[in-house]
Amino acid sequence: MTLQLFDLTCANQRIFFSPYCWRTRMALRHKGLAFESLPWHFVEKDRIAESGGTRVPVLVADGRQIADSWAIARHLDAAYPNAPPLMADAAARARAKFIETWCATTLFPLLVPLAVPAVFEIIAEKDKSYFRESREARFGCRIEDVSKDFDAERTALIKALTPAADALTESPYLAGDAPDYADYILFGTLMWPYTVSPNEMIDPQSPLGTWFARLLNAHDGFARSAARAAG
Amino acid sequence: MTLQLFDLTCANQRIFFSPYCWRTRMALRHKGLAFESLPWHFVEKDRIAESGGTRVPVLVADGRQIADSWAIARHLDAAYPNAPPLMADAAARARAKFIETWCATTLFPLLVPLAVPAVFEIIAEKDKSYFRESREARFGCRIEDVSKDFDAERTALIKALTPAADALTESPYLAGDAPDYADYILFGTLMWPYTVSPNEMIDPQSPLGTWFARLLNAHDGFARSAARAAG
Repeated sequence: MTLQLFDLTCANQRIFFSPYCWRTRMALRHKGLAFESLPWHFVEKDRIAESGGTRVPVLVADGRQIADSWAIARHLDAAYPNAPPLMADAAARARAKFIETWCATTLFPLLVPLAVPAVFEIIAEKDKSYFRESREARFGCRIEDVSKDFDAERTALIKALTPAADALTESPYLAGDAPDYADYILFGTLMWPYTVSPNEMIDPQSPLGTWFARLLNAHDGFARSAARAAG
Repeated sequence: MTLQLFDLTCANQRIFFSPYCWRTRMALRHKGLAFESLPWHFVEKDRIAESGGTRVPVLVADGRQIADSWAIARHLDAAYPNAPPLMADAAARARAKFIETWCATTLFPLLVPLAVPAVFEIIAEKDKSYFRESREARFGCRIEDVSKDFDAERTALIKALTPAADALTESPYLAGDAPDYADYILFGTLMWPYTVSPNEMIDPQSPLGTWFARLLNAHDGFARSAARAAG
């Protein structure tokens, strides 16, 4: 039975931009698993109600809805032990969990101005009032005022990424000679601004930029072939 | 020939408090290497001039001075390949480098108010004017004004440590079932406030606290037996 992924999308259902869905998308490709992407909009909470949550990714496996990108990654390793592991051992889980929390606490606040206004531009009409109200309540300002100075915001992001950039001077991937879920967490996070904006955030010549390009090209260029907003 | 370590110390030469020296101290114990600690004061730049630098740790190996805790760790793995590795492979180097830069950019600014005034209290008289002048120029205020609200500063540190705390819910050490240099970098960083202040920064019941206790006890309780300031 083919796996299905409730996958956040935009008005024309061509761009998939959720940083959490991208973690799961790359995880599925890493495991060599085919999946059907089910385009999903913010207001379609009823379609994922069985998962017990209100956010995607939600994986449908054997007729069961599984919410939460971390739980999905753990499920995939448990259900497909003969496929390449996303997290091979306790050290790999510790690395991925460190990266996950670091992305949530350090990178996300800096990505908001770089991604949220661009997301608002591309989402479906039926999503717009939900998105505006929920985000304006969260950020305490109008979506149009979330970004104030693109260059300064980009610089702040690059500065915050220094630990990863420095790590990638020592190794092709955070996990060593091949990527694991820690890499996909950070990569998925950065696919958020990448898919919704034509602006390049990361110097392609830098260690972080060459790592990002390797992951765009990984798994037969899966992420490289993804649609991006034209801006 | 016994290894020697130029090791930052205080007026009575009993407390060793440098976060960078602690990384090297733990690294030497991890490798099972005996070493002689050479108490060193901030103003004794001439004693480490051969290293090419002005800061400790400086390791003396085969009559040669080696500066910089990262370079020393790499040297120890290269020079003692049959002893337990500090960084076994590219993945381990990437992890340690990530932690090193994260400590430098995220944790150090938050540790300054928790450690610097306490350091000033215990250092040798001959170090005091150098320390005051260099630190006040760096921080832009008097040493007495670096800390404004201990509880708030401690809370900010604990919050910044969340990625590590979450990682340690997945694994006993950042490196898995046993510590490696990534663990020693973070541990050494936290030995800075630990040695200069009797205040406990980290909840001993938390995942981070139990990890810290395990490393205090590691290598025959080497760090546990270290002298601390009485406050």
